[in-house]
Amino acid sequence: MEAYESGDFMALIVQKYGGTSVANTDRIKNVAARVAKYRAQGDQIVVVVSAMSGVTDGLIKLAKEIAPLPSEREMDMLLATGEQQTIALTAIALHALNIPAVSLTGAQAGIVTDGVHTKAKIHNITPKQVHERLDQGNVVIVAGFQGETKDGQITTLGRGGSDLTAIALAAALKADLCQIYTDVDGVYTADPRIVPSAKKLAEISYDEMLELASLGAKVMQSRSVEFAKKFGVVFEVRSSLNDNPGTIVKEETKSMEDVVIRGVSLDKNQAKVTLVAVPDKPGVAARIFKAVGDANVNVDMIVQNISHGSGTPATDLSFTVDKPDLLKARKVIEGLRAEIGYREVIANEGIGKLSIVGVGMKSHSGVAGKLFDVLATAGVNIDMISTSEIKISVVIDLAKGEPAMKAVHAAFIG
Amino acid sequence: MEAYESGDFMALIVQKYGGTSVANTDRIKNVAARVAKYRAQGDQIVVVVSAMSGVTDGLIKLAKEIAPLPSEREMDMLLATGEQQTIALTAIALHALNIPAVSLTGAQAGIVTDGVHTKAKIHNITPKQVHERLDQGNVVIVAGFQGETKDGQITTLGRGGSDLTAIALAAALKADLCQIYTDVDGVYTADPRIVPSAKKLAEISYDEMLELASLGAKVMQSRSVEFAKKFGVVFEVRSSLNDNPGTIVKEETKSMEDVVIRGVSLDKNQAKVTLVAVPDKPGVAARIFKAVGDANVNVDMIVQNISHGSGTPATDLSFTVDKPDLLKARKVIEGLRAEIGYREVIANEGIGKLSIVGVGMKSHSGVAGKLFDVLATAGVNIDMISTSEIKISVVIDLAKGEPAMKAVHAAFIG
Repeated sequence: MEAYESGDFMALIVQKYGGTSVANTDRIKNVAARVAKYRAQGDQIVVVVSAMSGVTDGLIKLAKEIAPLPSEREMDMLLATGEQQTIALTAIALHALNIPAVSLTGAQAGIVTDGVHTKAKIHNITPKQVHERLDQGNVVIVAGFQGETKDGQITTLGRGGSDLTAIALAAALKADLCQIYTDVDGVYTADPRIVPSAKKLAEISYDEMLELASLGAKVMQSRSVEFAKKFGVVFEVRSSLNDNPGTIVKEETKSMEDVVIRGVSLDKNQAKVTLVAVPDKPGVAARIFKAVGDANVNVDMIVQNISHGSGTPATDLSFTVDKPDLLKARKVIEGLRAEIGYREVIANEGIGKLSIVGVGMKSHSGVAGKLFDVLATAGVNIDMISTSEIKISVVIDLAKGEPAMKAVHAAFIG
Repeated sequence: MEAYESGDFMALIVQKYGGTSVANTDRIKNVAARVAKYRAQGDQIVVVVSAMSGVTDGLIKLAKEIAPLPSEREMDMLLATGEQQTIALTAIALHALNIPAVSLTGAQAGIVTDGVHTKAKIHNITPKQVHERLDQGNVVIVAGFQGETKDGQITTLGRGGSDLTAIALAAALKADLCQIYTDVDGVYTADPRIVPSAKKLAEISYDEMLELASLGAKVMQSRSVEFAKKFGVVFEVRSSLNDNPGTIVKEETKSMEDVVIRGVSLDKNQAKVTLVAVPDKPGVAARIFKAVGDANVNVDMIVQNISHGSGTPATDLSFTVDKPDLLKARKVIEGLRAEIGYREVIANEGIGKLSIVGVGMKSHSGVAGKLFDVLATAGVNIDMISTSEIKISVVIDLAKGEPAMKAVHAAFIG
C-alpha cells in the first residue's frame, strides 16, 4: 500500500491509541467516534489501546508500597489489568454508538511471548479469535503491551509495548494500514518547539526513523520500528487530536534519496566521560567497556585521540552515556583506575548531541563538510564526531545546541 | 474434619479475604502476615481474594460514564481486573516476607463457568496449575469472583462470588479447611448491636446458615452456603481483624438438635402489600405472582385470609417484598386492577420480619406456641406467620421489632 486513501476499498486497519488518547472516559468516547468514522467507510478495524494514562503509574506505586523490588511475574499480572480496563471501556463506548465491538486481552488475541517478564518478546501471533470476531462484523479491541507464554503466564512487553502490539498484529493480520495515534501530528524535520520552521514529513524510511528514535526524537521506541522494518509493516504516525494526515513510515524508496537530510535532532540527555592519558596497550578499551556494560550503562559515542605527550604512549578516551547513568559510569571507571592506570577522569554534563539523518546521504557527497562549515560559521566548536551511512552526529556545547540546530536546519532543510 | 486444630497435621487450607480485608496495601500486608503464620505451621495455603474495596465501584462508575447499560461481557472484562490486581499485590506482600507465592487468575486456576456474563455459574474446576504451584512449595493466590468459559471468555460470578470461588476451590482441592475471613467474628445468635447478650456460635448447620442468610443476617450469600452443602465443604466464618476462632459451618449432626434455637434474626428491609377483597376465583393468585415475578420482584411471605363479608366470596391477599421493590410491585398490582377486580391495595413499609431458626425444632414440639406466647407477653401483635421445618417467621410492627427480638432471644437463648 503506497498511498492509502480511506474509502478507496474495504481495508483492514490497525489503529493504536496511547495512554493520553484514552486518558478519561471523554477521550475514550473520542476514540470510539474516530473508529466509527473509519468503519462507516466500510473498513474493518482492529484497535490496540494502552492503559489510561496514570493507571500504570498508580499500580506501580501500590506495588512499591508493599515491596521496593516486586517480582516481575507479579508486576506483569498487576500491570496487564490497565490495558484490560481500557479495552472493555472502549468496547462499551463503541456499543454506545451502535457499533458491534468486542474486547480481547493480549492472550485472547493470540499474542504468544517468551517468558521474560516485564520485557517479553513476541514469539508469534495466532489471531484466530481476532479473525473470527472481525468476520462476525465486530470492531476488535486488543489490549496492547501484553501477551502470554505458551503455558499461559501473563507477560508484558515493556516500554513502547503497545506500539509493538499494533505493528505485530498488523503484520500477522496482513493489515492494509497500521495507524499509531499519538499526541503529535507526525514526524517532523526537527523539534518544532526549537525550530519553528520545522516541517512535518509526509514519509520517512524505517532506517531514518530508527536513527531519529535512537537520537532522542522520541515518537516511538526503536524496537517497534525495527519490528515493522523486519516484517515490512507500513505504518502512519498521526495525532488523535485532529484529522491531519500523519507521517508514513515505510521501506526506503529511490525517490527518498532525492532528499539529502530528512531531519535534524538534538539530544540534550547525554553526558561525556573522558579518561585522560590511558596507557596505549591492547585490551584496555575492551576492559573498560565490558565493565561499563556489566553495570548496565549504555554507551553511545566513543572517540579515542592519541595524545602526543612525552613518556609512554597514551591516549585520551572519551565516551557518552545517558545523563542518569553518569554517576554509575564514573564509579565503574574509578574502580578500574589501579588496574588500567589512566591519569584522571573528567565528566561533562554540559554537552548536546546534534545529528542529521537522511538516506540521501548515501548518494550525496559533501554532507559532512557542509555540516562542519555551517557549525563553524555559527561559532560552534565540535567536540566529538560519529557517523553512520545515513547519519552524522556531533557532540557540541549544550549552551550552543539550540542555535546550532536552527542554523543546521536552515542550511539543509529551510 | 471435625475439630481442626491448626498444627495438628499438615493441612491444605483455603482462605478467603473480602474487599475490606484487602482495602489498602497495609491490610494486604496484614493478610500476608496471617498467611505466613499458618504456613509456619506447615500448612499448604490457597488464598482467594476479592478486589480492594472501592475498586469495583470505581470501575462501574467509569463504565456508566460511557453508557448507562454497558454490555455484560465487557463489564466482566472490566471488573475481573479488580481481583487480578489484588492477587498480584498479595503475592508481592508474601514475597516481602520471604514466602514463595504465585498468583493465578480464575481462568489460570481452572475455574470454568457457563457463559452467563455477570452472574456465571461454576461449571467445573480443573485446578492443575494450583496443584503444581502448591507442590512446588508456593502459597497460591487465586482471584475470586471470576472464571472463564470453555472457549476462553472471561466471566464473573456475581454478588458473593469470591466466597463461592473459595468454597468451590476447597471442594475441588479436597481442602481440609476453608476459612472465610470477613469483618465480623463469626455467626451470632442475634445481631449483637441489637441484642448485647448475643453469643457467637461455635458451629451451625448449612440449613440453619441458609435460613439465617435468607432472613437478612448477611454474613454470606445463600448460594455459597448451598454450594458448600452440596459438596460437603466444611468452612469457618471468622474475622480478619483478630485471632478469635469463628463459626464452623457444616452438615447437621445429631448433637446440634439439642439446641432448639440457633439464632434469632430481624429483617427490617421488607414491606407488605395487601390486596383487599380479591375475588375468590382459581388462577387469580397465579396471575398476580407471575406478573410480580416477571417484573423481577422477589416475593418472600404470602398469606391469604378468607374475609367473611357479604356478597361474592373474596379474600385478602398479603405478601412481602424487599423495600426497594415496593414501588415496582405496587405498579404491577395496580396494572392488574381492571383484570382482577380487587377493591384496593395497601402498602405498608412499617413492618419487620422476626425469625427463629434451629434444626432442634424438628425434634422439639411447642416452639411456635412458646414464640407466640413470648410475643404476646411483650405486647407485640403478629401480622403474618410463615414456617419451615427449621424456621418460624412472623411479621410484626417495625417499631416493636427490636424489643421483640430481645424478648425472644432472652426466652430461647438467654
